[in-house]
Amino acid sequence: MPQGQPASVPVDGLTTRQRRNRPLVIVHTGQMKGKSTAAFGLALRGWNQGWSIGVFQFVKSAKWKVGEEAAFRALGRVHDETGEGGPVEWHKMGEGWSWTRKQGTEDDHAAAAQEGWREIRRRLESEAHGLYVLDEFTYPLKWGWVDTDEVVEVLANRPGHQHVVITGRDAPQSLVDAADLVVEMTKVKHPMDEGQKGQRGVEW
Amino acid sequence: MPQGQPASVPVDGLTTRQRRNRPLVIVHTGQMKGKSTAAFGLALRGWNQGWSIGVFQFVKSAKWKVGEEAAFRALGRVHDETGEGGPVEWHKMGEGWSWTRKQGTEDDHAAAAQEGWREIRRRLESEAHGLYVLDEFTYPLKWGWVDTDEVVEVLANRPGHQHVVITGRDAPQSLVDAADLVVEMTKVKHPMDEGQKGQRGVEW
Repeated sequence: MPQGQPASVPVDGLTTRQRRNRPLVIVHTGQMKGKSTAAFGLALRGWNQGWSIGVFQFVKSAKWKVGEEAAFRALGRVHDETGEGGPVEWHKMGEGWSWTRKQGTEDDHAAAAQEGWREIRRRLESEAHGLYVLDEFTYPLKWGWVDTDEVVEVLANRPGHQHVVITGRDAPQSLVDAADLVVEMTKVKHPMDEGQKGQRGVEW
Repeated sequence: MPQGQPASVPVDGLTTRQRRNRPLVIVHTGQMKGKSTAAFGLALRGWNQGWSIGVFQFVKSAKWKVGEEAAFRALGRVHDETGEGGPVEWHKMGEGWSWTRKQGTEDDHAAAAQEGWREIRRRLESEAHGLYVLDEFTYPLKWGWVDTDEVVEVLANRPGHQHVVITGRDAPQSLVDAADLVVEMTKVKHPMDEGQKGQRGVEW
């Protein structure tokens, strides 16, 4: 996409450069596939900028998105070995968060989601990453496992220059209100409508 | 996204496996950013499947999407060196297509777009890649530089198992009709509305 021109210049006391470099909260929502896919595409750009990439998947099963995970792990190794791009960390709720190594916490999704959010909060407060992908994070918010008001407040007060991308259906309105950029993926046509099941390399 | 269940089972004489493995034509369209980003996210999965990835960018300037390009070139090197994932080719119209090495063809976009399409057609006919990303390809179609009817016919008759993802605004209706999966990216909120310009690592 070409660089767009802003529709208007705000009166906020910031220079164009300051506004330009403002860290963003981005939400990918809607009923259609592509929300996570686009978030990982964005993370490719961040990797190329040398940002530390932190992916946190709030999914029960780690089966999905194995393709992206393998590719980002390979990019992380490229960074570690050659210095190109940025470092990559990839964490999944479904196997028990790697920093606790507790297996079997899948039985208590609410506790696991809380634990994931607390770690993300710590990382945001210590400026651990340049780009966070909180994949499927709208679900623990929707189900009340993680407090949306707290998330909005922590995001609003995060220090430094940290971009945060949150994906998932039914993003809470207060999160949409707090976000800088919100994209909704809308279905026009999907092969599942015609009886086709998901397939390897396309759906996961 | 979890694997969905089809809404109905078609009467087309195919087994579920045959339908499941059907190669897809995918279109990412709409007014909002994320079309190309999601296509490259999809290509990550294809890379992990070991598919040969062919990216063809129908853009005038090669400035955009440098982040994705660098990341995919790194993944291509990972493949060449370790065998992990698939090979990657990345071609840009804006610098003159690499297979002709003609520089300066930017002056005649219609001829350059035609030449790009002819090469893609040859590759489809010889089953060169497992996944094609035809980035911003809707524009040469829209402007009549490449004949949409011919594209639809070549896609319909392509042999083997080749997925094709086409991105760009204003996808022609006959292409949408011919596609298996169409996603429209819809803007909910964008910082440019509030006077912010695009920024590095996010827009490109």
